[in-house]
Order: sequence, then C-alpha cells, then structure tokens
Amino acid sequence: MKNFGHNCGVFGVSGSPSAAALTFTGLFALQHRGQESSGIVSSNGQQFFEHKGMGLVPNVFTPTAIASLAGNIAIGHNRYSTTGNSELRNAQPLTVECWRGPLAIGHNGNLTNTVQLRENLVQRGANFQTTTDSEIILHLLTMSHGTLVQAIVDMMNVVEGAYSLVIMTRDSLIAVRDPLGFHPLSLGRLNGAWIIASETCAFDAIGATFERDVKPGEIVVIKDGAIESFSFNRVVPRRTFCSFEAIYFMRPDSLLFGKTVADIRIAFGAALAREHQIDADVVVPVPDSGIYAAWGYANTTRIPFVLAYVRNHYLGRSFLQPVSESRVVAVDMKLNLIRSFVEGKRVIVLDDSIVRGNTAKSRCRLIKEAGATEVHMLVSCPPHRHPCFYGIDFPSADDLIANHHSNGELARLLGLDSLGYLSEDSMARAIGDCSLCLACFNGKYPTPVPL
Amino acid sequence: MKNFGHNCGVFGVSGSPSAAALTFTGLFALQHRGQESSGIVSSNGQQFFEHKGMGLVPNVFTPTAIASLAGNIAIGHNRYSTTGNSELRNAQPLTVECWRGPLAIGHNGNLTNTVQLRENLVQRGANFQTTTDSEIILHLLTMSHGTLVQAIVDMMNVVEGAYSLVIMTRDSLIAVRDPLGFHPLSLGRLNGAWIIASETCAFDAIGATFERDVKPGEIVVIKDGAIESFSFNRVVPRRTFCSFEAIYFMRPDSLLFGKTVADIRIAFGAALAREHQIDADVVVPVPDSGIYAAWGYANTTRIPFVLAYVRNHYLGRSFLQPVSESRVVAVDMKLNLIRSFVEGKRVIVLDDSIVRGNTAKSRCRLIKEAGATEVHMLVSCPPHRHPCFYGIDFPSADDLIANHHSNGELARLLGLDSLGYLSEDSMARAIGDCSLCLACFNGKYPTPVPL
Amino acid sequence: MKNFGHNCGVFGVSGSPSAAALTFTGLFALQHRGQESSGIVSSNGQQFFEHKGMGLVPNVFTPTAIASLAGNIAIGHNRYSTTGNSELRNAQPLTVECWRGPLAIGHNGNLTNTVQLRENLVQRGANFQTTTDSEIILHLLTMSHGTLVQAIVDMMNVVEGAYSLVIMTRDSLIAVRDPLGFHPLSLGRLNGAWIIASETCAFDAIGATFERDVKPGEIVVIKDGAIESFSFNRVVPRRTFCSFEAIYFMRPDSLLFGKTVADIRIAFGAALAREHQIDADVVVPVPDSGIYAAWGYANTTRIPFVLAYVRNHYLGRSFLQPVSESRVVAVDMKLNLIRSFVEGKRVIVLDDSIVRGNTAKSRCRLIKEAGATEVHMLVSCPPHRHPCFYGIDFPSADDLIANHHSNGELARLLGLDSLGYLSEDSMARAIGDCSLCLACFNGKYPTPVPL
Amino acid sequence: MKNFGHNCGVFGVSGSPSAAALTFTGLFALQHRGQESSGIVSSNGQQFFEHKGMGLVPNVFTPTAIASLAGNIAIGHNRYSTTGNSELRNAQPLTVECWRGPLAIGHNGNLTNTVQLRENLVQRGANFQTTTDSEIILHLLTMSHGTLVQAIVDMMNVVEGAYSLVIMTRDSLIAVRDPLGFHPLSLGRLNGAWIIASETCAFDAIGATFERDVKPGEIVVIKDGAIESFSFNRVVPRRTFCSFEAIYFMRPDSLLFGKTVADIRIAFGAALAREHQIDADVVVPVPDSGIYAAWGYANTTRIPFVLAYVRNHYLGRSFLQPVSESRVVAVDMKLNLIRSFVEGKRVIVLDDSIVRGNTAKSRCRLIKEAGATEVHMLVSCPPHRHPCFYGIDFPSADDLIANHHSNGELARLLGLDSLGYLSEDSMARAIGDCSLCLACFNGKYPTPVPL
Repeated sequence: MKNFGHNCGVFGVSGSPSAAALTFTGLFALQHRGQESSGIVSSNGQQFFEHKGMGLVPNVFTPTAIASLAGNIAIGHNRYSTTGNSELRNAQPLTVECWRGPLAIGHNGNLTNTVQLRENLVQRGANFQTTTDSEIILHLLTMSHGTLVQAIVDMMNVVEGAYSLVIMTRDSLIAVRDPLGFHPLSLGRLNGAWIIASETCAFDAIGATFERDVKPGEIVVIKDGAIESFSFNRVVPRRTFCSFEAIYFMRPDSLLFGKTVADIRIAFGAALAREHQIDADVVVPVPDSGIYAAWGYANTTRIPFVLAYVRNHYLGRSFLQPVSESRVVAVDMKLNLIRSFVEGKRVIVLDDSIVRGNTAKSRCRLIKEAGATEVHMLVSCPPHRHPCFYGIDFPSADDLIANHHSNGELARLLGLDSLGYLSEDSMARAIGDCSLCLACFNGKYPTPVPL
Repeated sequence: MKNFGHNCGVFGVSGSPSAAALTFTGLFALQHRGQESSGIVSSNGQQFFEHKGMGLVPNVFTPTAIASLAGNIAIGHNRYSTTGNSELRNAQPLTVECWRGPLAIGHNGNLTNTVQLRENLVQRGANFQTTTDSEIILHLLTMSHGTLVQAIVDMMNVVEGAYSLVIMTRDSLIAVRDPLGFHPLSLGRLNGAWIIASETCAFDAIGATFERDVKPGEIVVIKDGAIESFSFNRVVPRRTFCSFEAIYFMRPDSLLFGKTVADIRIAFGAALAREHQIDADVVVPVPDSGIYAAWGYANTTRIPFVLAYVRNHYLGRSFLQPVSESRVVAVDMKLNLIRSFVEGKRVIVLDDSIVRGNTAKSRCRLIKEAGATEVHMLVSCPPHRHPCFYGIDFPSADDLIANHHSNGELARLLGLDSLGYLSEDSMARAIGDCSLCLACFNGKYPTPVPL
Repeated sequence: MKNFGHNCGVFGVSGSPSAAALTFTGLFALQHRGQESSGIVSSNGQQFFEHKGMGLVPNVFTPTAIASLAGNIAIGHNRYSTTGNSELRNAQPLTVECWRGPLAIGHNGNLTNTVQLRENLVQRGANFQTTTDSEIILHLLTMSHGTLVQAIVDMMNVVEGAYSLVIMTRDSLIAVRDPLGFHPLSLGRLNGAWIIASETCAFDAIGATFERDVKPGEIVVIKDGAIESFSFNRVVPRRTFCSFEAIYFMRPDSLLFGKTVADIRIAFGAALAREHQIDADVVVPVPDSGIYAAWGYANTTRIPFVLAYVRNHYLGRSFLQPVSESRVVAVDMKLNLIRSFVEGKRVIVLDDSIVRGNTAKSRCRLIKEAGATEVHMLVSCPPHRHPCFYGIDFPSADDLIANHHSNGELARLLGLDSLGYLSEDSMARAIGDCSLCLACFNGKYPTPVPL
Repeated sequence: MKNFGHNCGVFGVSGSPSAAALTFTGLFALQHRGQESSGIVSSNGQQFFEHKGMGLVPNVFTPTAIASLAGNIAIGHNRYSTTGNSELRNAQPLTVECWRGPLAIGHNGNLTNTVQLRENLVQRGANFQTTTDSEIILHLLTMSHGTLVQAIVDMMNVVEGAYSLVIMTRDSLIAVRDPLGFHPLSLGRLNGAWIIASETCAFDAIGATFERDVKPGEIVVIKDGAIESFSFNRVVPRRTFCSFEAIYFMRPDSLLFGKTVADIRIAFGAALAREHQIDADVVVPVPDSGIYAAWGYANTTRIPFVLAYVRNHYLGRSFLQPVSESRVVAVDMKLNLIRSFVEGKRVIVLDDSIVRGNTAKSRCRLIKEAGATEVHMLVSCPPHRHPCFYGIDFPSADDLIANHHSNGELARLLGLDSLGYLSEDSMARAIGDCSLCLACFNGKYPTPVPL
C-alpha cells in the first residue's frame, strides 16, 4: 500500500513461438515490481524486434505491437525509476548492436560503483546515450574480449551491487544473478520452452512450472533448447538476500526459499505474537501487504482477524508517478474504514513497515476517530533507519521517522497506545535458513556503498 | 471481481465553498459504481460551470479543472453505460438552459418506459440531442408548468423504473428517489453543508456524517442551508430495494438499512453455513466481493478462512471497457492462486454470484489443478435467471448459465464436488426488514418491463 | 495572412453513395472558412451517422471515420468560433431528434437577435444544451407546426442577421440563405448528385460543376433526385452581400457574381491604380490575400510586380487558436522578405486591409530596414471603423486603428511615405452590379444590431 | 509542392542567453528542410539540456520546454528521415557522454560508406543504439585520440558523402562541412553571438546578419566569443554543391553564392526563355517552387505571368508522413485552378522538376480540361535519371519517368503540346561560378556510391 520505488521486474523466454505473448503476460504478473515503463525485445535468430512505452503493461502493448515481436526468444522488463530520469529513452530492455552482434539487456537492481565504472568506461572510449546503470553493463560486455560468458564473468568482477539480469543475443537467452543474490530470479519450464522471471508468480500466470532459482553468482545460458550453467568464481563472503523483498515487495503467491511468500508473512505474524502479547479485541491488517502477517498473528493469538479497511481499487495513472507529493494524496484515498468493526474495541493494526510515518499516522487516527478504545500498532519488520543502495527507493536517513524518535515518542506521535516491531532475529528465522541483507535496518551494507 | 455494468453513482453538495473539490473526492469514493466517464457541474448562484470527460475520476479532473468549477453548489456523476453509447456527449451531469433557468441532472438507474416517454415528448415538441434516458427526465421537468417540485412530482407520475437523482438549479440542490427505492441514496452533513451521495462511503471519504437515507418516493430540496422534504403521493405497493446492491455492488463500508454492507455479507455467510453443511478443510473467498460472506461462513462453521487467491491490482484502462470479450481476458489475469494453501485440502470456494459461469469454471479448475482433494462452491445469492431492467447490466436470459442446467449438471460442468446457493428467504432475512427486488432471481418485476 | 475569425463553411451532398467522402473533400477545400472544429452527419434514409472533432479537417477524419458515415446524403461544417465557446459540444452540424424525426443543421453566419429569440424560446419550453445560435434555429424549426418548409419560412420571419444553412432530414437536403444574402451559398451537380457549398472552389475539389447560387431568401429542397425552390415572401429592402467576403475571405478561385474572386481583386488593383498614382519602382503584395490586387495594380501601372515576401507554410496547430495574443506571434514568423528585391527601391506594399495596424507596421518596417528608399502602402478596401455582427470577428471599434488617427497620422505611425485606401464606390464597382454590406466601413447596418 | 524527403536542417548558437529560444525560431524558419521530428540540446557550460519530439517545430516545443533548455550555447535539428526509421530515438541532435565529456551532434546529409564504417566501428568495440549514420560520426569522434579538432579531421578522412554538421561540447559550438560542400551551411552574427544555420533565411528570422558561408572542408570552432577556422587538408578534386538545393529545396529568400535563391531561379526562367521560344498567351507557375522561374520566363518573353493555381494552405500533419502513397493523395488537394485564367488560352506551365510524372500529369490535365487550347510544359532543370546518395529522397532509377520515355513520348503521355527542360549548362551558368553535383541528372557521382 506504500509506493516504494522498486528496481524493476525482468522476464525471458527461449524456445516458444509465442515468446513475446508469454513475455507480455509475464510482465503483467510482475507489474507490482515497476509501473513507470515496460518493454519487450524479441529475436527470430537473425534480427531483433522491439517495443517499449511509458505506463502500465496493458497500456504499452496493443495486440498489434505484440504480434510484431517475432521470434522464439524474448526478454521483457518493467521499470520503476531508481536511477536515471523518467523518460522513454531510459526504458528497458536496452538494445545495442556491437561486435558480438545485437545484444539486449533487462536489469533488476542497482549497482553501487557506477560513478567509477562509468568514468572508467568513458576513459576507455565508451559513448553513453542513457543515464541508466544498465548501459554500463552493456559497455562492459562489449569491451571485454573472449566469449560472452567470459565477458559476463569479467563484468561481474568489476561491478558491485545488485543485479538480476536477462540478456538476449540473436540465438541465446542468458540469466545472471549477482554473487550476493540480492533480488530474486527463477527458472521455469513451459512445454519445451525455458522461462526466466523475477518471481514465480509469473510462471503461474503463463502456466509454466517452477524449476529452480538462479543461484547467486550463477550464469545460465539457454540456447537451442539446451541449458548450461556457469559459476562466478570470486570468493563471496555470504549471500545476502534483500529482506524487504520478503516483507513487502514480492507477491504473496511467489515462492521464496521453498515456501510461498504468504507463508513467510504468516510466520512473521506468529513471531510478532510471541514477541508482543497484547490484550486486544481485534487484529486489523493494513491491506494488502499487512494481510498475511495479521492473519498469522490472529491465528496464533486467537484474537479475531477483522478486515476493517476497504481498499479503493480505482487509482488512475496519475497516482503512480514518482513524485513524493502525490503519494500522500493517493494514500488518503486508498483506504476507507468500516467503523462498526472497530468501534468500542481494543484494536491492533498490523502493517508491513513504517518509513516516513505519515501514512501510519493518518490510518491510526482513522481508527481512533471511529471509536476504538485502544489502538496498538505492530510492524512486521524492524525499524527502518538507513537508505538502500541496491534498488529500493527508501528516503534518505533524515526522512526515516525512526531516526528521530524513540519507540515511545513515536507511539505518542502516531496517537498509539503501543507500538511494536518484529526483531531482526525473528524476522530472519521466519524467512528461513538464509543470510539476508538487513542494511536498511542495521546499516551493515554487504558491499562498499557511495556515502 | 466481475464487471457488471452498473447504472452510475451520483453525488451533490450544497453550502460549501469547496463544493467541486468535495464532489471530486466523493466521486472518487464512488468510482466502483461507474468507470466510463465522470463529470461535475457547479453553480455560483448565477452561472453554471462544467467539466466532463471519459475515463476514471482522477484522470478526468486535473487540479486546474476542479479550480475552474466555482460556487457553493455542485453535483457529480460517474457513468457506466447502460443506455446510450459510450460517447462523451452521453456523459453526465446533463445540463440545459430552459425557462426555469439552467438545470443540471445526474441519474443513477434505468427507466423502463423510455420508448413511449421519448415518443410522447418528441410529439409534444421536444428536441433530443442525446440518447440517454436522463434527457427524458429533463424534458419532462421543462414541459411541466408550476414549480419545479410540482414538475418533479408530475415526472414521477409518468416515468417507470429506477432513478436516484441529483438535480441542480442556480440556487438549489435536489435529491429524488423513485417510489420503489431501487437504488441507494443518502443524505449527509459536513459542517454547515448538505451532502447527497449514492452510498455513505462517499461521506466517509470527505469526512461528512451520515444523516439519513433519502426515502423511496421522496424529494429533498436544499436551498440556502434549509432543507425541505416532499413526498410523491402515488400509492406504492411496496418498496423494492435492489438485492444485488447488497450482494455485489455497494462498497462493504457503506451503510444499508442501519448496518454496514460488510455486516450484511457476513450474515449471508452465516446463513449459508446453516443451509449448506460441508465437511471441508478451508474456506477460500473470491476477492473482493466474496470476502465477507466467506468470513461469515468461516466464523460460523469454524472452518479456517484462507486467503488463497491473490488479486492483481494493476489493470489498465483497456480492461475496463464495456466490451464483453475483453472481460474474459481481464478475468484470467486478475487472480492468482497460492497453491500451497489448497493442496491436499477439501476446499470451499465462496463467490457472490454465478452469471455466465466462465469465471467460476476457470477459478475452480485452478484450485483443482493445485491439488485440492475436493472443491465445493457456495454462492451468496440464489441462481440468476432473468435480466435486469433497472440498471444492472446482466446478460440476457439465454446467457445465464442457471437457465440451461440443473444444479447437479452445473456442478459437474464446473468440475465441482458440490454447488450450493443461498435461498431467497435467507438472503432477505440477512439484509433485514425490507422488501426487495428479486426480479433477477424469480422474474417478478415490480414494474411493467419491455419484453 | 490575418486571422479574422470567420463564421464557418458549409457543405452538403444528396444522391451519392460517396456522400460522406465527397463532404470530407469539400470541407477540406473550405478549410480557410474555419479551422477550429469540423463535422459530418450522414443519413441512409433511416438513421443518422455522425463524426465531429476539434482541429483541421484531415486531422478530424480518419478513413475509418469516413467509412462509418453511411448513406447517400450528408452535410458538413467547418467552424471558426464566433459565438459560443471553443468546445467540442459546440461543433457542428448540430443534430436533434424531434417530432419531425432526426434533423441536422450546419450554419454559416451570425444572428443579431439571439438574446430575444433564446429568451422567447426558453419561455415557450425549449431546453438549450449548447450556446450556439444554430440551436435557436433548430428549436424554431421544431416548435413550428406544419411542413418543414413552412417551419423554415416561419423561422426566417423571426430571425435577423446572416445565415447560410444546410439542413438534413432522413431523406432531404435543404439549403437556406438569409433574405439579405450576406454570405455565399452555391448549388452544384456531380453526375446525378446535387451539391451545396459555401464557395464554388469546393465544387472544383470534387469535380462537380457549378449550377447557380442559392438566391437570397431562397429555400432549396432536394429529395430523391428532385429539386424544389421556395421563396421567403417578406419584402426585403435590398440584398447586402458581405463586401469583406470579396476582399479577404473567399478563395480566389471561387466564383462570385459570375466572375472569379481573383478577377474581382485584380479589378480592385486596377481601381487603386486610378485612385492612387505613385511614382514607384516595385509593387510588393502581402501574400496571399494581397496578391491579385497587387497584380492588377502592376498590370495597370506597368510598375513591376515583385514577390518579395516569402511565406512560411509550416504553421502548427497552436498558431490557429482563437486567442488574440498568439496571432501577433504567428504573424512575425509567417513572412520573410527577400531584401535584394526592395533594396534601394521605391516600394508600394499592397495589402487587403488594415485592422489593428500591428501587422502592417511590422511588415512595412521590414521593407524600410531592407533599404527601400520609399515605402508606400495601398489597401484594397476602405478604412475599417465598425465591428461586424454578421459573422466576421473584427475587434471592437476601439481596437480599429482607423478610428484613432487621420490618414496622415497613420502613415507616419506605420513609417510610410504615403498610405492610400480604395474608395467604397470603386470597390463596389469592381465587385459588380450588386448591393453590398459596407457596415464595417460606414456603420450602416442593414438589420437592427445589438449595441 | 512536391515532398522529396530531405536530409534535414541544422542550427546553432553560441554566446546568447536566449540560445534555445533563438534556436527554436531558427528551426521554425528551416521547417521546409524536415518535418518529421525536431530537437534542441543546450549547454550551460557544465551540463546539457535536451528536448526532442516527433512533428513540426511549433508542436514539439512548448514555451515551458524552451525555458527548460538553459545555457548560452544550443544546437538544433529538423529531421526528414532518409536513413533509419521514423522513430523518436532517431531524432536529432544525438547526444552522448564520452571521454571528451558530453557531445551533441546535428547532421544534414547522407554518408555513402556507412556499411563499412559501421562494421569497422563495431569490430573496434563500438555499441550502436540507433540506426542513424550520425551515430557513426559520434563514435569516430570518440574513438580518435588527440584534440576534438584532430578527431574531426580523422573522421573526415574516413567518411564519404555529404555532411553539414553542428557539434556542441560543454563550452564550444563547432560547424563542419564536407570537403565537397554538398549542402549549404552559413555563419551569422547577432549582437555578440555567433549563429550557424543550414540557410540564411534562419538568420533573417532571428534578426541576425549573414557573415559568410562555412567553406567546403572547413571546421569552424566557436568558444568564449572567439572563432577559429581549420581546414581539412585532403586534396579535393572540386567542390560539388547539390544543384537541387538551388532548384527546389532552399527557401527563395536564402542566399546562395552571393545571390538570393529567388534571383537564381529567375535566371533559370530567363535561360529557359532563351532555350525554348514558345508562342503562348500565359505563363502559369506551379506554386511555390516554380514561381520565380516562371516570373523570369515571363519577364524575358513579355508573355503575361498568370497565378492561375491556388494553393490550399491547410494540410494537416497526416499529409506529411514519409509514405509514398499518401503523397499522391495530398497532391490532388493541394492545388486548385482558376479556370477563367487559362480558358481559351495557349498556356505554358512552369514547374521545377518532373520525377515520377504523376503530379505533372494531373496538373496539366486540369489545365486542358479548363479549356486551354494548348498546354506546354517547361521544367527549370534537366530530366531526372539517377537516384541521390547524398540526402535527397528521389525514387530509384526505375521510378524516374524520364528513364522510360523519350521527350516526345513523355509529352504525349502527359497530354502536352510540348515539353522542354533546362539544359545542364544553362542551369549551371544561372547558379553562378561554381562546380555542381549533377549526379541525379547525369549519373556522375562525385564520390564512390553503394550500387
């Protein structure tokens, strides 16, 4: 229900005569990962075909546009601007013709050493036509000699940060995931075809089956129906999956570490129940991202789960623009409260996170004004204190409300009787056996970052 | 989650310097009642100001457009085409200048004797510039002599069918509801101003308080802060509120007969629990309209309530067009299933209605394919067998699947282990002490209809 | 080269299977008479088909739009706003359904007693949905009993002012011209079909032949291939054709009183040569409206005709908006001077009129700065001193520069060595044997006007 | 009056605080050289600002867009597609960031060895994101070491063909013209600022004065108010200015070899009078390109010059699309004939060229049908027999009508009594003391071309 900018969704198909149509459907299922622009590039073995536009997937692609994207291979991309301006020329996939032939790339994530990389490439003779860090990757692939896989390994040796990539050549589809595995990237199958997607919900949308995740540091090359895997051989300290993907971004029906994201969020709720026992009458989720955690809390505590907020589904395009002022406006109209469900009750509101605090404040006030006798708020992650450099568009540290107030002050400020966060440990346990990036909570960035 | 065309939402303000801005917000809260076009007309006591456009409320009205709508009175309208074509010139409110001065009208509902009325008016010298039945009402108001209230009474004497109206003159705001009270219309207050809205959720959106419903057959005239009520004096057999408003159309946070619509739907679920005992492991609602009934069923039966369907919120404008083919396409992409929530389980799917059956079929198949051992379906209303002439865009009797198959056949056809509907009686009891229009279920139309 | 708003162009076809396509081409040839909006309505004998839009003819009508306009009869209209706002709903033809069946009307000209007429109609029960005076005519036709021709006669008895009309019913095409014959309206033939057009250049565009003018006060009814003529029988003092049509508006290739307009303008130039003998080296026309008069002047005086101004043909849509400020901007970029053609020469600049004077000033300065030793200006009509109420969008008397300065002062103000106008008498003689409306020159309005 | 695609117009300003606004006006004056897309890039010494769009100059640039283009240096470009597709991403100026800092380029002309150059650059590691040959020039400038001037010289050593360039760096404006000087490029001054433009008419539009032409093979560098000139030192056989620029493309008020283009065309007419004596009553120019030659013919022969064709000025955007079918349609509506001017006369029609012959045919038939007793056609250049590789979008040799018929046959085919062309020698003499590219007439290409 918040509008963090995210660093995009990617999708790829190899080996299907409906490659572009499948990519359209896959991008539609990944729409939550980027609403600013969308694009598809396909290959018929000889030639590339391309269509890109500003706006939502169904508005960008007409049936005619999809029909014009010939060939058995295609890659697609939904963009939410994190670097570069909101212009069509920054829309992805980005395509170049180089000595390797035509190359297209779609990129989810954010590099952290772009300034040095760009400067270095420019010194070596590269010409930059966009302001995206994806163009940096393309230049690195072109400048390196040897095979494309060798060039990808060379690239991985110099770039820092987060990248889940789909790359297309005339005859190959390639998936690449950074060695720390910040963002998700999975492999699926549909009849004879191979599918790559940011999240498994895109497999379900096209009827494909989940095969496995692309591993951190892995390069998967699909050509003529065959699949080859290469490993990036740099010693990596530990993988660090973005915890906020699990908390907020991923769709609840996507798979993560063998479970659905909904199950992980239910476990967040159960953990919150262990950490924060509250004597209350109802648990009210903030839709949609708080729903499963609230449900887990309710199931564990036996406090009734009450859908008291009603979401307004009709939000025009103008509300999705990357301008911070308009977000506040949008929020006010997104949720309405069924007053009778909370009147005279002790209420627990459960949300996924508190960032600036404005949204939380207005929503809790709504419940208070409806006649709740107590309002408690639970958050299914720790307090946000640090910016993200890997693709999530959090505000600067100064705008994160947890940096300015103690827990008690914040509760008072939001008009709450109590405020509780999920601990880092419990959160990590709920996600499962994996190392996580918790930098936005504890400031421990797994790579050098530009400060 | 279905796209029945509906006959619009209306809104009006009298006595606020922000009349147009409040109307904008009110229309936004009523967006679910019409997405084809939207319009606002305001009056500063001397002159009317008007802005209309095709599309969703936030796309039609820029801040500049709202600022240009001067005055303390305003009426607004969201249209979903039921009569007339999808053109801007059919967008409402409709404005004329006549011997009474300027008049504007916004209409929710559908008249059933338009052919005769139009023919008759044309013979008496009326010029029709649109194909809406709202223009019929305007001509009737103009042709009648005497006061405007007398003219409204005269109009009510000749028109048949459903109409909840907002009417504006230079200095007055008038609300009119047909004698049978088919569709909702309520009265609210905000500081000194009077508000009229199709549903009370629009009051909440602007911070107004609910005062009372406009009564069937009532004419409410608001002028200079004062309010007067007139009654249409024709003997009316019984009021007949549209039951499908309670089942599907109204927002769950709106009030109906003293309860929230969510509460009524919870009662539907409780009644289903009494009528259909099923040995199952989980109750899965079809979002969003099936949620509260499923919740009521789950709370009564103690069978776990499981949010297994995930809704895709990003549906571009093209999916909302009143073209029947595109609906099917849209449906396929709207819901995704969390397979692990139903795998190996005996599942009850709860939806608000079955009309053509295509949607139900594909959704049940999804659950079966996910590995459910049994799939039962419960519907929170009786089988649909007859078209509606009062504003709901059901298909013809031929396209209603319940007219072609027995209950058992239909269950087989949909791949279900069982299929159960809510009975008319239970449904009516859940809605409360009131007479209802059940014509779409039993064919007993409360007015003569054109067959 | 100026942008006087004009009161529209009309076109009609009866008896051709390509009625709409011919109307499209005809409207394109009449584009100079109105650039704000364009529309076509056709009839297949049963039903009307309509397409209207803002902008130039080729932008309003796609091939698909034209193909959708079925039937053997069609009328079309180019609008330049003189009354009413610049909105799509004021675009013509205007269509209504009334007791006579469907009626459509296209109107060129301006009525002078609209306030009383509208007030009177409103008192008699008419509902106005637009602010055009064409809707007044429609209501008059509807309110009158008897045949449509009788109703047209009744209408002509009450309206004052200028009107050249095309009217369409299910099966008839009707042309009507006001008794004073202010604006042109002609009748043509193409194979078996009858054509009506504001100017004969539209006949040439579709390959039709000119038959005759519609006479002042005449009603021409075309039905099933037959043509009937009716005369409006009110005693009319004299016909008064708009002299500015001949001076500026009509295309030079249109016929007027048996001659081409180009011939009439050549005669203006010859008359100027008799009235103003100037010792000069070159005659420079202001394109395009001054070209033929300058040519006549040059041919008579044997002073060389020199095309020293070059017109910039690429003017985007934004320059054609009815906003007075933008006209000045546009003018500056419309003409460029070939300096060598006037350097060191005694130059006569010949233009069709001086209204506000800004344009004349900047153009004469251009010639002076290019090194002309003398600059004289000749104008092919008398000084403009009065506003027009019949359809020409001259500014108010206050903004007409001739009302503020003597001839000598004006010459000094414009930086001229001399300034000469054509006399009323010579102008009238050049146009030919006809009575003219000269109200904009001498203030003698042929009908009562609202002052 | 024909629509040959042309290879663009360029404009540049250095040293004015209104650099972008001047460039807008300059591009507007150069609109005849390209109507497909337009763009401006400016520099404030640190940073580039850019705005580009499809369509005509006044439609691409809003006042807000112009205001956003900060800085004292700007370059602009009007594009008519000759290479690459009609897409926004091919719009110019093209901008890159490279080791030299940001670079922008606007290109008029066409290279003839692009395939080899592109292939070679790709092998050396260049990434191509567009299909324009201008990107080739940018890569050459980047790949070369040494100063930018040295890089430009290196580039000139390898590219073949036609190029008039404006190049911008953070602090410099550079003009470059190919060694053969195919297309015009001139230098002007406005107060302290330096101006570069494809034609001098753009200087007049902004009030600048013509300084001199950029010489073939010259590199002009303007920085901080100072100007430096460098010469490309390769031995050049002879300069070869495109004769069709003089015949058709350039605006008549632009300067060429010290004369106005109008004067040169008048000389064409005088030469035609010497080569083709015809006993005729009137000389009718085809507007606008035939006007000055016809005038020269008329002045020399004393046969009256008669403006019998009237041009329709209102041509919407759709008529300017680079699709060959639509050209024919457009032509039919562009000109109308004043029949009385040619009826019963022996007529000479004078046009600038005959390419496919369709246009000439329909126009001559118009005159015949109007009752001319004889129709002769004179053309102010030799017959077109060969395609152009330097930027003019002539059709292939197969579609040039002069390749299929003798002069006599062609006259018969066009329905003419006689047909005469201007000889190469006379044409060259009229243009003045200069070597010309006559390849489209005689097939002698001054550089190797891809056949």
